[in-house]
Amino acid sequence: MSFELPVIEDIEHTALAARLQHLLDNKTKPVGSLGRIEALAQRIGLILGTESPVLEAPQLVVFAADHGLAARGVSAFPSDVTWQMVENFLAGGAAVSVLARQHGIGLTVVDCGVAHEFAPRPGLVVCKQGPGTADALDGPAMSAEQCTEALEAGAALVRELPGNALLLGEMGIGNTSAASMLLARLAGLAVADCTGAGTGLDADAVQRKIAVLRQVLARHPDARQPLEALAAFGGFEIATMVGAVLAAAAERRVIVVDGFIASAAVLVASHMQPHVLQRCVFAHRSGERGHALMLAHLRADPLLELGLRLGEGSGAALAWPLLVSACALLREMASFESAGVSRQDEAPAVAALTA
Amino acid sequence: MSFELPVIEDIEHTALAARLQHLLDNKTKPVGSLGRIEALAQRIGLILGTESPVLEAPQLVVFAADHGLAARGVSAFPSDVTWQMVENFLAGGAAVSVLARQHGIGLTVVDCGVAHEFAPRPGLVVCKQGPGTADALDGPAMSAEQCTEALEAGAALVRELPGNALLLGEMGIGNTSAASMLLARLAGLAVADCTGAGTGLDADAVQRKIAVLRQVLARHPDARQPLEALAAFGGFEIATMVGAVLAAAAERRVIVVDGFIASAAVLVASHMQPHVLQRCVFAHRSGERGHALMLAHLRADPLLELGLRLGEGSGAALAWPLLVSACALLREMASFESAGVSRQDEAPAVAALTA
Repeated sequence: MSFELPVIEDIEHTALAARLQHLLDNKTKPVGSLGRIEALAQRIGLILGTESPVLEAPQLVVFAADHGLAARGVSAFPSDVTWQMVENFLAGGAAVSVLARQHGIGLTVVDCGVAHEFAPRPGLVVCKQGPGTADALDGPAMSAEQCTEALEAGAALVRELPGNALLLGEMGIGNTSAASMLLARLAGLAVADCTGAGTGLDADAVQRKIAVLRQVLARHPDARQPLEALAAFGGFEIATMVGAVLAAAAERRVIVVDGFIASAAVLVASHMQPHVLQRCVFAHRSGERGHALMLAHLRADPLLELGLRLGEGSGAALAWPLLVSACALLREMASFESAGVSRQDEAPAVAALTA
Repeated sequence: MSFELPVIEDIEHTALAARLQHLLDNKTKPVGSLGRIEALAQRIGLILGTESPVLEAPQLVVFAADHGLAARGVSAFPSDVTWQMVENFLAGGAAVSVLARQHGIGLTVVDCGVAHEFAPRPGLVVCKQGPGTADALDGPAMSAEQCTEALEAGAALVRELPGNALLLGEMGIGNTSAASMLLARLAGLAVADCTGAGTGLDADAVQRKIAVLRQVLARHPDARQPLEALAAFGGFEIATMVGAVLAAAAERRVIVVDGFIASAAVLVASHMQPHVLQRCVFAHRSGERGHALMLAHLRADPLLELGLRLGEGSGAALAWPLLVSACALLREMASFESAGVSRQDEAPAVAALTA
């Protein structure tokens, strides 16, 4: 395949890391008492390459596409819901629309391969690789050429976006199946451990879904490299997201990873170029079975754990204010010196116990 | 004691609860897929008594006071840090100052009994019960009269605040000790399980702290009722916060509970009037040992778990945007009908497996 992998440098092992830690340790608070918000401030400082990080013009992109495998009954909802929800995003009525409005996050919906023709309008980008992927049980979900074109489309899209932060969202009936298979194949895990209820299958339906996915995996025994697995299992929205993640990482944007599907795109991208993970903030551990395993494989420690399992980028948008807080604390909190606050006693005096 | 306990009605068992659930279930998302954000929307709707909740003019109050027991070496920081941090809150350089600014939350600092005289200025309320509590190892931390006055001061303060949400914050070197003793006594737990590092004691110092607290508990064997325990162990900031919580609950304000100390105030208030808990949103599970036990005792399921152990209301402020999101989602998300989105298939068709 001809997609040109961008150069993504190591940003963790730098003098800036020590300077950021020194700054945090001198803020007016007990050392470490802001917990994971301090690690988050470190991370964003490193990504943006500054001790005074400012998040600018954040962009949430919802990558949408349909899946041929959906006809096999792997989802509780019909495929039509993909295009209907795209309309809902654009009309402002979906969860992610509400949350993006709340936080002033730009929202773009990308038709990466929805089985529907949309009228053009603001906020919608069309870079369709086809009217949904092929049925992965019959052959690869997409061709190698389609996969490359999706990667390139995702990279080109990000390079046109303003700001320095990309929040990942997605919509695609059937896409938890693709994500489960990517996890099983790339991380070498049993597919049953990687497969959950998606939008709301009951226990019997989950077992049927697992049986289908097992057959699909057996149908593509040689799809073991990241892009081969991506082409075999789909989908177009995940492939486009992989390209977006690689371009965002190369440009040192802060990448806010949503749930199971967005994490699957990061999984593929990080198997191509591990330094991608240095640019990622994982927003939440979702309620979808398999996400905890995926995060463990990526050594990711997400910010929220609220039992979310909606996708769309809703978890990324919910976590967004924590990133803004981390930057504000780093920039605006006083130091012990500047505020005239006494430091921790080296050896606290313990009065004799007289009771 | 003469503090008049306000009437706090049951708000959970109402027709509104069913209406809120129906609204949430008809939003364009799989049922329950916004996880605990849905429970949060329910909670806020019930507190404010509406299907269209709007949080207005949120107020974060930092209750500050000193503790006589601090002289026994139960904290890693000297008592002077209490007044120095009050100055830092007012100057805008503390963590909670930064976060309140970020979210447009009003910030008030209350001198409930700091061992320092502050110059009057905007944002500072003085309702001092004394220059810090007495040493609880010598006798009760405060008299019954001081305790009643603190409760009344807290209640009066809240009644003067605008808005419909109260975020609890506190500052007081030594106040994890008071909170640990209140938890041990009121929940009937071993004090060692309730006691942690506070601002940063090492393991040996924590053991010395536990030994002191065990002696203090033994010094007050009869302080078993909420207000008796509060007077025995302190502090003035916790007692003032108890009054604030009771008044806020009576007025059906949303009470956003911060960490270990704020939870201790809610513990005392809820032992006086259990319906207080219906008005509480627990912001986070802190890194302070004892907080998880406290939350379990209160049957509280907090929103965040970020290893915070700063106090000040910093966790409440960090969680605040989630409350705003929950209300916005309830008010602004489209329903399946309004957006023209297909519902979940009653029985998804499973195609024959042909591989």
